[in-house]
Amino acid sequence: MNFPSKLIEDAVNEISRLPGIGKKTALRLALHLLKQKETVTEELSSALLALRKDIRYCATCHNVADSGHLCSVCLSNRRNKQIICVVEDIPDVLAIENTNQYQGLYHVLGGVISPIQGIGPDELKIDSLIQRCAHTISEEKVTEVILALPATMEGDTTSFFISRKLKELNVKVSTIARGIPVGGELEYTDEVTLGRSILTRINYSSE
Amino acid sequence: MNFPSKLIEDAVNEISRLPGIGKKTALRLALHLLKQKETVTEELSSALLALRKDIRYCATCHNVADSGHLCSVCLSNRRNKQIICVVEDIPDVLAIENTNQYQGLYHVLGGVISPIQGIGPDELKIDSLIQRCAHTISEEKVTEVILALPATMEGDTTSFFISRKLKELNVKVSTIARGIPVGGELEYTDEVTLGRSILTRINYSSE
Repeated sequence: MNFPSKLIEDAVNEISRLPGIGKKTALRLALHLLKQKETVTEELSSALLALRKDIRYCATCHNVADSGHLCSVCLSNRRNKQIICVVEDIPDVLAIENTNQYQGLYHVLGGVISPIQGIGPDELKIDSLIQRCAHTISEEKVTEVILALPATMEGDTTSFFISRKLKELNVKVSTIARGIPVGGELEYTDEVTLGRSILTRINYSSE
Repeated sequence: MNFPSKLIEDAVNEISRLPGIGKKTALRLALHLLKQKETVTEELSSALLALRKDIRYCATCHNVADSGHLCSVCLSNRRNKQIICVVEDIPDVLAIENTNQYQGLYHVLGGVISPIQGIGPDELKIDSLIQRCAHTISEEKVTEVILALPATMEGDTTSFFISRKLKELNVKVSTIARGIPVGGELEYTDEVTLGRSILTRINYSSE
């Protein structure tokens, strides 16, 4: 693709470095910004810079924290501090928060174990999770760790690794249920999911 | 959607003002930037700001011009200055340039006549097109104006308006061919396009 202007070319190259945005979309976005008032671009730029420069991470759970030491979930008095939900990354915290079904704390690993991508347990925040569970002096005792990791081989490996590490700490370890989604038809569910949902069936009355 | 951080919320709001980007995609982009080095965000921001602040438009054809008075097409000695191709906007210039089939100059209208959106002829660069065609002192005489406007009602209205204005100037006015696309099957072509392509058929040998 040839560009009539170095400025447009630079902007398109930078925008198309974002995931899921190709050169054509980048050009469309750049030309859109050219048609808007200059303040639109200024506000976008400053929001991005502020996000990248001023963001802090919670010292306890590694979730985002606007300012200060701890995130809003860890600071809240309404949360049950005896339960920790382990997630892969920050969007998962958002997804679970939006269900309004969970009142415990979180622990953001920052990824899952993936030998192919060169991510081992040491790259993840697993040690600090073990410390949170073992540390019984200042905080309330952790009674349950919920593993809410992706249903992939990497997620399962990570879940297995963490559950082994937590074995000696006398903490209940659970994992989120896997089965057919709400509204899902059996006919269109893949065999593995359907097979697992039969094996891990639950009592009808207890639901 | 609830956000754990004001910084993320601000960034998501700004990013999702871009066309075709919703809150979910904006969040994904914001979190992607958080995972990258700080320089990535800085380079993106500065490229956008530079684009918006330093861009200039060609005084003759209203195409983008990096610096100075005229754009690279108008400055080039290799272009045929007797032909002007009229397009709606800058992406159309890029699209035609990428075909490598056109060696004339351009004229960017900045839109098409659209009463619904409140865009009349005065909002577009039609007057300067007429002046280019009428102005025979310094520049070479314009012999042909090619209308390459979208095949919509608005595009057709604009083409008609311009052709009427050019009538008294003794300039040949043509429009780009409309018909079935190269590689297109007749079976799947809509009736209007197919009907027009029969009515505006061309001699086989002359192609």
